[in-house]
Amino acid sequence: MSDTASIVQEKNIHKQATLTDKVSPAQQLADRLEADMQAVNAEIMARMHSDVPLIPKLAGYLIASGGKRIRPLLTLAATRLFDSQTNRPYALAAAVEFIHTATLLHDDVVDGSEERRGKAPANLVFGNQASVLVGDFLFSRAFQQMVADGSLDVLRILSDASAIIAEGEVLQLSAQGDLTLTLEQYYKVIGAKTAALFAAACEIGPVIAARSADEIKALRDYGYYLGMAFQIADDVLDYAAEREKLGKAIGDDFREGKLTAPVILALAAASDEEQVFWARTMQDLDQSDEDLTKALEILHKHDALNRGLDIAKDFAHKAQAAIRQIDGDAELIAILEDMALYTVYREA
Amino acid sequence: MSDTASIVQEKNIHKQATLTDKVSPAQQLADRLEADMQAVNAEIMARMHSDVPLIPKLAGYLIASGGKRIRPLLTLAATRLFDSQTNRPYALAAAVEFIHTATLLHDDVVDGSEERRGKAPANLVFGNQASVLVGDFLFSRAFQQMVADGSLDVLRILSDASAIIAEGEVLQLSAQGDLTLTLEQYYKVIGAKTAALFAAACEIGPVIAARSADEIKALRDYGYYLGMAFQIADDVLDYAAEREKLGKAIGDDFREGKLTAPVILALAAASDEEQVFWARTMQDLDQSDEDLTKALEILHKHDALNRGLDIAKDFAHKAQAAIRQIDGDAELIAILEDMALYTVYREA
Repeated sequence: MSDTASIVQEKNIHKQATLTDKVSPAQQLADRLEADMQAVNAEIMARMHSDVPLIPKLAGYLIASGGKRIRPLLTLAATRLFDSQTNRPYALAAAVEFIHTATLLHDDVVDGSEERRGKAPANLVFGNQASVLVGDFLFSRAFQQMVADGSLDVLRILSDASAIIAEGEVLQLSAQGDLTLTLEQYYKVIGAKTAALFAAACEIGPVIAARSADEIKALRDYGYYLGMAFQIADDVLDYAAEREKLGKAIGDDFREGKLTAPVILALAAASDEEQVFWARTMQDLDQSDEDLTKALEILHKHDALNRGLDIAKDFAHKAQAAIRQIDGDAELIAILEDMALYTVYREA
Repeated sequence: MSDTASIVQEKNIHKQATLTDKVSPAQQLADRLEADMQAVNAEIMARMHSDVPLIPKLAGYLIASGGKRIRPLLTLAATRLFDSQTNRPYALAAAVEFIHTATLLHDDVVDGSEERRGKAPANLVFGNQASVLVGDFLFSRAFQQMVADGSLDVLRILSDASAIIAEGEVLQLSAQGDLTLTLEQYYKVIGAKTAALFAAACEIGPVIAARSADEIKALRDYGYYLGMAFQIADDVLDYAAEREKLGKAIGDDFREGKLTAPVILALAAASDEEQVFWARTMQDLDQSDEDLTKALEILHKHDALNRGLDIAKDFAHKAQAAIRQIDGDAELIAILEDMALYTVYREA
């Protein structure tokens, strides 16, 4: 273990000791909305059914693997801020999760020559073709759910978000290995591929509850900035020894030549030798087994992970400012406010 | 050249001489609806635009390659049967074509170990990942178009069709190499993966024109049966020397172990030796270069191609019966009636 990794690990042990003392805001939200989430989960299980056995099998593989379901939780919370009774968010929260699951399945598709190290397992187990087609099924199901709900506003919000997500994913693909990618361009990519769906998930709530344009915009902004903070923190965690300690893979972005906040920050201050290193490894994808360790050393030298988290924190503060504009369930507002900052400091 | 192929080629020359004498029904339809189709094409070009350059580039690669655009033509025709003025079908016909293009892009995704012989070129040129993501973009665009049109009925029809298409594609994938596949199961696969979108494309017309439930059903039935005839004829053409003569690949389904009408018919009457042959080639995908020729010989021995076309013809007759129920533009009805039968006898 390198010295750096050892230091990070010690810090991590300290942080874990702190975190076990209290329940995370995401868990607080899940606890507060537990009955609602059970209804959403029932909806998800019922609606991913198909007479074609491979569909619930493959969809269930991903969905049952128990992600945090943060997006449907946001749709529920954004509705319950204003309306404690309506059942409408159940089908729509399920639709949001289906769109998310479809993008995960499609995001994992690889080309023949690529390695699949560190990839999510669905396409490893079931293959590219099945993953794509089941993704299409879930995506279509999401729109069927929205049609059954009957709100053209919701349909507009989520069809717009879906188009933007696809654009963001293509933009990210086009930018692979592009060492000239700026932070602004990176924000555009993650704003589209991640924050757009967070924004849409939140915006649906006040739309269902028939609230004002200002309130709809505030929730949309909250979701957008939360999504930005979430993705930047995620991109930092991809280089974080903490995650590795939890049994998760690190270095996926490095291996794919996907430029994210840490590397963009480190590149801006790179020595000539480091420039050559990044060009060989991330532009030309000419990598040996020791290169990830070397990359981590360079990132730590430039304090790029902490600086990445600082940027994430700035977005989290914007999310907090947005949610504070809302006049609704005070407990939910407080949890959503905490959650924005917590997403930056989560461990995995 | 085998004797069989030589005979087929002679027949083909004869058929071509006949066909050059007159304009095909599909071309008659395109001529009759030329101004409308120009508006649809303009809509397609405008709406496949994105600031991410790879999207119009890849989408245009497929869309500009000049398919027959049979599905948007059907949406136009089904509207013009009743309403010669409305502009509403333009955006919706474009949406139908986008959904079709997205399914083509996703259908072409392959897994690492597979050969790509005879595959459509988009994923060869741009890769699996880009093809999937641009497909997602077009799919989302289609829903944005429908939302802008504002009809929940249309949204229901096309989101239902999209879910059914995905189910059909997964069913087909699950049935690969399954020699026990019955004709009924095969009808279920192609009914979902092909006929559902033909049906939806046609159903939209009378919905836009606010016609009766009976008329909506008649158009839906016409599209469904036309789609069945179209796909069965397509599956026969995949083994037809005529198509090879036109410079198109044959034997794709054979190489992928995809059981279609000709092989299902030949299997029902297979000798023990032929059973072993089909099991080795289509179930185990253990194929040598001569096996396609051998497969064609067996198919011709059982007259499986002609018998496949007879089945397609039965579906075409059902399509004709459905369209004859309609009281609308007589010229269009006559063309649609001819087109059902022509689709069975087309060359490629």
